[in-house]
Amino acid sequence: MSSDLVFKNIVVVGLGLIGGSILQSLKSKSFKGSTFGIDSNLSAITQANKLGLIINKDQNIDTDLQNLLVVFSVPALSMSQAIDDLNFKSEDVLYTDTCSVKSSVLEDIKKRKSEFLAKFVLSHPIAGSEKSGISASSSNLFDKKLTIVCPHENNAEEDINKVEGFWQNLGSLTKRLPANNHDDLFAKTSHLPHVISYALMHSIFKDLDDKTFLYSGGSLEGYTRIASSDPVMWKDIMIANEESIVESIKQFKASLEILLDMIQKKDPIELTNFFTSIKVSRDALLSEENN
Amino acid sequence: MSSDLVFKNIVVVGLGLIGGSILQSLKSKSFKGSTFGIDSNLSAITQANKLGLIINKDQNIDTDLQNLLVVFSVPALSMSQAIDDLNFKSEDVLYTDTCSVKSSVLEDIKKRKSEFLAKFVLSHPIAGSEKSGISASSSNLFDKKLTIVCPHENNAEEDINKVEGFWQNLGSLTKRLPANNHDDLFAKTSHLPHVISYALMHSIFKDLDDKTFLYSGGSLEGYTRIASSDPVMWKDIMIANEESIVESIKQFKASLEILLDMIQKKDPIELTNFFTSIKVSRDALLSEENN
Repeated sequence: MSSDLVFKNIVVVGLGLIGGSILQSLKSKSFKGSTFGIDSNLSAITQANKLGLIINKDQNIDTDLQNLLVVFSVPALSMSQAIDDLNFKSEDVLYTDTCSVKSSVLEDIKKRKSEFLAKFVLSHPIAGSEKSGISASSSNLFDKKLTIVCPHENNAEEDINKVEGFWQNLGSLTKRLPANNHDDLFAKTSHLPHVISYALMHSIFKDLDDKTFLYSGGSLEGYTRIASSDPVMWKDIMIANEESIVESIKQFKASLEILLDMIQKKDPIELTNFFTSIKVSRDALLSEENN
Repeated sequence: MSSDLVFKNIVVVGLGLIGGSILQSLKSKSFKGSTFGIDSNLSAITQANKLGLIINKDQNIDTDLQNLLVVFSVPALSMSQAIDDLNFKSEDVLYTDTCSVKSSVLEDIKKRKSEFLAKFVLSHPIAGSEKSGISASSSNLFDKKLTIVCPHENNAEEDINKVEGFWQNLGSLTKRLPANNHDDLFAKTSHLPHVISYALMHSIFKDLDDKTFLYSGGSLEGYTRIASSDPVMWKDIMIANEESIVESIKQFKASLEILLDMIQKKDPIELTNFFTSIKVSRDALLSEENN
């Protein structure tokens, strides 16, 4: 592991897919410090300990750890309780999280002590899987993926850098974005596709039942993959980012109505122009991205 | 190539992604017979000839080829013209196609001579790419993919077997399905996901423009991949299968409204149950599929 990783102790709160993958990645990169794990489910702690991912065997962790990073990796609506439950007396500590929604977490920490607020640098690794739980975790989940870091006005630049360094050491790229921009943007680019995938799977399964995938040849399986995501995590995202998600669904419905109207009119020119303009925009964006 | 391939001559009409891939696959499997290509675009013929995929260098092909299979690989609404343009005098000939919509093709051939109708076995290889044109074609496009064969009452079992054998020789699996069932089913499992992908890309790009993919980390690119599909092919599918596609969009909109309502009510129980039931159904179907 590069010398950039300045922490001597890392505590991961929430030993699911993301929390487990952070620990797997630290282990595979031979992190020199000590790693600890907290989870409301004791068997997850036992499992992580047996896998050699954490030192502690139960909920008891030294409350005086120094040079410490605490990474919250719990569903958005469990954040508040997870923070309440924490009782580290350390002075030399930074906090971060992995939630897909940032404004609700920012609101919560703004209600807490100013020292805590200042030391909490929000982040969101754009990595995941439709599988969940520590058994599905992987040491290369963050490799070449993007982590969005959402600094707020009470964060010191030095602390933001340390958290960015943490993600970069796990193999991730990092970009900065204010929390409210993050939530508006991800409502469209991530939460909306999940809403669509759930609704699509619901509508097809209702109709085709056990014949859903019988003739699809694999493409529908791929297209609905994210409808097998963790229900609790996504229930929390829907509630925590409700306003932006509802707005993104409304915009999508407007586009769907435009296309539905063209299909019903069987208008070859309008349809060709619509599909062509989308293809041209999309291909141009991706070609810029690759250059 | 296995001895199952009974044809001595194969003519592919339409040298795009699918037509080109059929020829690439025949070549890579050392097909012993002769292959020919027809396309309204002379440069596609020249290119296919230079690639060693077809014998002919221009539109002129011996009209008396025996033991012949003609594969139509043109967009659905170009089928009628492509059939009109054909002038083979051969008696020993079978026809098939690769259209994603089958009822409109069946309707068309039912209006033609009964000998032609009898010798036309409809098929639909479930394989493709968001890339189009012969340059994007590949010899393994059909490997382990599924081809739906839609026999009609005028087909002889022997001829259906020959067409199925053709696809199996290209590496494809085959299943049979009546044309009207095919179109209802694919309206849901393939055409609807394309409609959704186009509408999603339209709605996000309208809002985010050149920032569309900036923070997505790859997942949105994957989810909108099919919105870069061939505009003419998909314009034709929308028009040729309008009725079933409109019905599938209505069913999808109903499911979307159910989920939108739950999100607006921020109901944790309803949302968790909805997501869980979808995940459970989907995971069970895939686990059956793999067993």
